[in-house]
Amino acid sequence: MKALVYDAPGQIEWREHPDPTIQNDTDIIMRVTTTTICGSDAHIIKGGVPDTPAGTVLGHEGVGVVEEVGASVSNVKPGDRVIATCVSGCGYCRFCTAGMVGQCQNSGGWALGHLVDGLQAEYVRIPFAQNSLYKIPDELDDEQVLFLTDILPTAYEVGILRGEVGPGDTVVIVGAGPVGLSATLTAQLFSPANVVVVDLVESRRAKALELGATHAVSPEAAREVVNELTGGLGADVTIEAAGFPAPFELAAALVRPGGRIANIGVHEEPAMLHLESLWAKQITLTTGIPSALSVPTLMKAIAAGTLDGTTLITHRLPLQEMKQGYEIFRNAADTNALKVVLNQ
Amino acid sequence: MKALVYDAPGQIEWREHPDPTIQNDTDIIMRVTTTTICGSDAHIIKGGVPDTPAGTVLGHEGVGVVEEVGASVSNVKPGDRVIATCVSGCGYCRFCTAGMVGQCQNSGGWALGHLVDGLQAEYVRIPFAQNSLYKIPDELDDEQVLFLTDILPTAYEVGILRGEVGPGDTVVIVGAGPVGLSATLTAQLFSPANVVVVDLVESRRAKALELGATHAVSPEAAREVVNELTGGLGADVTIEAAGFPAPFELAAALVRPGGRIANIGVHEEPAMLHLESLWAKQITLTTGIPSALSVPTLMKAIAAGTLDGTTLITHRLPLQEMKQGYEIFRNAADTNALKVVLNQ
Repeated sequence: MKALVYDAPGQIEWREHPDPTIQNDTDIIMRVTTTTICGSDAHIIKGGVPDTPAGTVLGHEGVGVVEEVGASVSNVKPGDRVIATCVSGCGYCRFCTAGMVGQCQNSGGWALGHLVDGLQAEYVRIPFAQNSLYKIPDELDDEQVLFLTDILPTAYEVGILRGEVGPGDTVVIVGAGPVGLSATLTAQLFSPANVVVVDLVESRRAKALELGATHAVSPEAAREVVNELTGGLGADVTIEAAGFPAPFELAAALVRPGGRIANIGVHEEPAMLHLESLWAKQITLTTGIPSALSVPTLMKAIAAGTLDGTTLITHRLPLQEMKQGYEIFRNAADTNALKVVLNQ
Repeated sequence: MKALVYDAPGQIEWREHPDPTIQNDTDIIMRVTTTTICGSDAHIIKGGVPDTPAGTVLGHEGVGVVEEVGASVSNVKPGDRVIATCVSGCGYCRFCTAGMVGQCQNSGGWALGHLVDGLQAEYVRIPFAQNSLYKIPDELDDEQVLFLTDILPTAYEVGILRGEVGPGDTVVIVGAGPVGLSATLTAQLFSPANVVVVDLVESRRAKALELGATHAVSPEAAREVVNELTGGLGADVTIEAAGFPAPFELAAALVRPGGRIANIGVHEEPAMLHLESLWAKQITLTTGIPSALSVPTLMKAIAAGTLDGTTLITHRLPLQEMKQGYEIFRNAADTNALKVVLNQ
């Protein structure tokens, strides 16, 4: 088969790669029909994820058709259309049973396209299929459910649910990349009064407004807007979706007493935590990666028309043009790329 | 009356001060029978709390007898023995009604001995008496309930409850001053498997063991002990009770995936938050000050004999020797002072 292979920092190639095979009774083999590129893939290519072995097929987001199932897999059968979630779970460790699949202690968590071959390929082996696959209803096409593999449950679980967004809230989302915009979309499922999106880039602010943000501002303007909206008190929930110290510190500064700061961003360095003001402020700060256990919920929201992730698609290419897709994604400043989708 | 008055940074005096009078219908006047000294009082004297006006009577911890009640006070009457909690609440703002009395928006929160005259005096005016006073059962003496005014509810609410300490947990408490030791005591109400107390000072570690800690170690030794107890995973809950960057960073480093970090410490400067390791770790970090709404619960625990705060008393003096009490408290390194109690 053909696949997008990571060889070394800065080096990827679309080339022949051995077909995946069933290795454990809990595996399935899936033919990939639609996949996409994530910031984490770019992170691996930059050399930022050193435990990814050379020769690994990248990609942890994808939709496809089951080709073959291991002996103990009972939830899907060959021919089923499925989505594979970015995290896999053994289903029996203390973290999986506590709903924290991302922390699975038995080779689960984020493994696809990181520690084992991923989904930017014609075929893929999905481990722990019973805890990692969801069947797709006939009425939903690939693109409608594609982002249920990562960015929608990540934004929803780690941002909206951990941050406890509720009706009437003022929510600040710092960072309007694909995950920040997914938070913008999924926040609206809880009817907040204000969704204030903060980003340096004008085109991303415009996109946030298009997707339902009530306000979209630069970092410099954020405090004044939040103060106006909240009588100087601060936001009920602030969500960090950028992964850098400055946006994290902005999110922490904009929260009200008793409020929640939900970090979604992938960070490479520490940030300052201003405990001299936060110690008495009764805040709750959360971090995390998704369990993807919200996929059935979000799938129903998509089917009901209350959530539409396809608005994040900016580019579509055939699967074999995967490397061109990476170029478009890498040059987002020029291409305005959010999600680049590859089909076969 | 006589009172301990703060005049300027470094300057306090035990001297004549005007008797308190009812100013609002919701006030009461209390004759103070027992009071004590807190790290926050020392903090004011150092100049670290600049909004405290010169001429303020210090103290936010005390037990006494009601002398006079405002027209709308119905929960206590003259002659009742009561404790006054360190925070006062209007009872009707969004924070008081959400159980966050410490964040009261109507001149409540921590006001006593900070923004209005406090309890290190012969008499004190207690504002918002309906939300700030608890009657003391006849069978409990002043010293048994004295620490319900601050350090016990602070440790319990901000450390144990916010940190969600539970049966079988491994709990790390960084800092074994009066608040850290109160966390050591109140953690045991939830039957954790291990209570690991970390402090630089040997005598405080010894005290922690005396009060029920299962392990008491220096900061350098903490990681190894926690790793041994948890198979390298980290503690379920870590509690910061020191108020400095290094102990905070130690608390954050010792938590397991999915664990909780509860900050109780009063901080004067920021700390580093190591998001490069914490972002994916699904942690919950909380801060706060007490509401003191747990006082009835803790009073029942004291009456039942499952909690005994009197073990924290190291020194007892007559009220008029208040300044001498401050000297003992300030020289804790030599005096081994934890709580200095003043009676009249």
